[in-house]
Amino acid sequence: MGRNLAESARDLRMVLPSGALDAIARVEDLLVEVAGRAPERLVAPVLEALTAGGKRLRPILLVLSARMGEPEWEGLLAASVAVEILHTATLIHDDVVDKAESRRGKPTTVTAHGRETAVVTGDYLLAEAFYGLAEIGNPRLVRVFAEAAMGMSAGELEQYRSSGTPVGVEAYVDHIRMKTAGLFRAACVAGGTLGGLSLRQIDALATYGQALGLAFQVSDDVMDLVGEPGLMGKSVGTDLAEGTVTLPVIFALEEGDGAVIRRVLEASNPTPELLEAGIEAVLATEAIKKTEAWASGKVEAAIEGLELLPDGTERAILEAIATEVVGRDA
Amino acid sequence: MGRNLAESARDLRMVLPSGALDAIARVEDLLVEVAGRAPERLVAPVLEALTAGGKRLRPILLVLSARMGEPEWEGLLAASVAVEILHTATLIHDDVVDKAESRRGKPTTVTAHGRETAVVTGDYLLAEAFYGLAEIGNPRLVRVFAEAAMGMSAGELEQYRSSGTPVGVEAYVDHIRMKTAGLFRAACVAGGTLGGLSLRQIDALATYGQALGLAFQVSDDVMDLVGEPGLMGKSVGTDLAEGTVTLPVIFALEEGDGAVIRRVLEASNPTPELLEAGIEAVLATEAIKKTEAWASGKVEAAIEGLELLPDGTERAILEAIATEVVGRDA
Repeated sequence: MGRNLAESARDLRMVLPSGALDAIARVEDLLVEVAGRAPERLVAPVLEALTAGGKRLRPILLVLSARMGEPEWEGLLAASVAVEILHTATLIHDDVVDKAESRRGKPTTVTAHGRETAVVTGDYLLAEAFYGLAEIGNPRLVRVFAEAAMGMSAGELEQYRSSGTPVGVEAYVDHIRMKTAGLFRAACVAGGTLGGLSLRQIDALATYGQALGLAFQVSDDVMDLVGEPGLMGKSVGTDLAEGTVTLPVIFALEEGDGAVIRRVLEASNPTPELLEAGIEAVLATEAIKKTEAWASGKVEAAIEGLELLPDGTERAILEAIATEVVGRDA
Repeated sequence: MGRNLAESARDLRMVLPSGALDAIARVEDLLVEVAGRAPERLVAPVLEALTAGGKRLRPILLVLSARMGEPEWEGLLAASVAVEILHTATLIHDDVVDKAESRRGKPTTVTAHGRETAVVTGDYLLAEAFYGLAEIGNPRLVRVFAEAAMGMSAGELEQYRSSGTPVGVEAYVDHIRMKTAGLFRAACVAGGTLGGLSLRQIDALATYGQALGLAFQVSDDVMDLVGEPGLMGKSVGTDLAEGTVTLPVIFALEEGDGAVIRRVLEASNPTPELLEAGIEAVLATEAIKKTEAWASGKVEAAIEGLELLPDGTERAILEAIATEVVGRDA
């Protein structure tokens, strides 16, 4: 499996056509402006959260999807800003729920500013996202993102509740469909809508976004077990240590003797030795291979979906993004 | 000053014209349906929060405002449900921020279900409110409520931060304008919009809603000092004991020797004797009288605003609601 997609999004900008690149650069400016017009006491937490190193993957998906049609510039920017704000709001509240101390190597809002400010900052940003979407004037956009936001909140609780308790593949996939894939899907659908694409094309983008989101999440799950600390601001085995059951862990538990893995999941704060043993137990199975195969299936579905869309630079980049997730180009 | 408006909303239903009453009855059913279609683990907290004895004042304002024009039935219901959901979501997160244990005599969501579920339930309901608004198909409604939601979140932090620290009248009014009056205003504006009223009439409803919300909040502030525990599920002096500075307290502090009041505000958990002495110190000043005069001014402004609107049952009830807040009919 390739590098984590979030990590490669910076490289991705290298290949974006100039119109898309201009849009993303403008989104960066607009996100800073959002912080600037927040109520005085929220300026710092909002600015920190919106400029904490997010790779703008969701705005990039939205812009590329839109540019397969003919989007209006202001609406494109407003929706791209809104999807990133919505994503950020969700991360802030996730960190309150999970009591997470750092993200992308920086203190979370809850750690830096306290729980009260973190709850309020997330609420403010949620409302700001819908305000921005409403300004575009197309209620379908609001509906698409509201639906995604409902799923994300439900998905967050699912994760919290199932911590430490083994779950099945189906329940896990339902969970990441809501938690991660829903907003990828919404970004692509919003883009297609803004581009004025046909309903069939927008459906194809929905399929692409959802499959990409699922593959993206399980790629992240694999990275937690095999790779590259530092880059993510996250050490290896973080999910496992927190008792979060992921797809490779589910496959490993299905395969055979999962006693050590279960012990790590159940420990409230496993020792480095126990955690190491747990990771080794997962890696000793076919779990990573099965997860990669599962992700490849999703990526194929994602790319197939794109066949209905105009052949061109944007579609080629969307295909490359999907391929990159499972490193099939490596 | 009369009974708290929330307390009299049940009586209010007695005087609603049958069309409005039908709408509110249907809103009650729809709120239960919202809970029923929530993700499994959120059904109980959502149902409890949406049926915890709210008086549906905001939906009532919305319905009455709309019926001064010619609202479409489904849109009217959807917006009325959304305003109540948005209000409920805000209360749930407020209680997380304030660590409040009970509301209307029942355990808060955070007390009954824990912080994680309370954060997620509020997020889910916020998203559900915007989903419902988007379904109506008029982006102006989404914008009006998103703007109110931004203000409410900012206002909540203001309250948290200023606890125990005396603030001026202006800062306090700014605070309650965001925290309470904004959603009253939005309910009235949304109603006028759905009713197809003119922009001038909608502006008049905005003035009414905001002035009513301000008067409503300071009426609540007075009740905290003078009255009727049990009814509110809230004992006398709760705000004061929590260090929350309200308008009568600000007036009392301005008037003279506020040493005892300051001592109560600064105490993290004042004794009943100290609290009693603090309340007496406020009541010994002209603070209640001044607050009532301030509220009466707002109510007059609210009623004056209504002059632009069609004379009829709905307008008469809106006037009566405003009058009731300051008990001028008593």
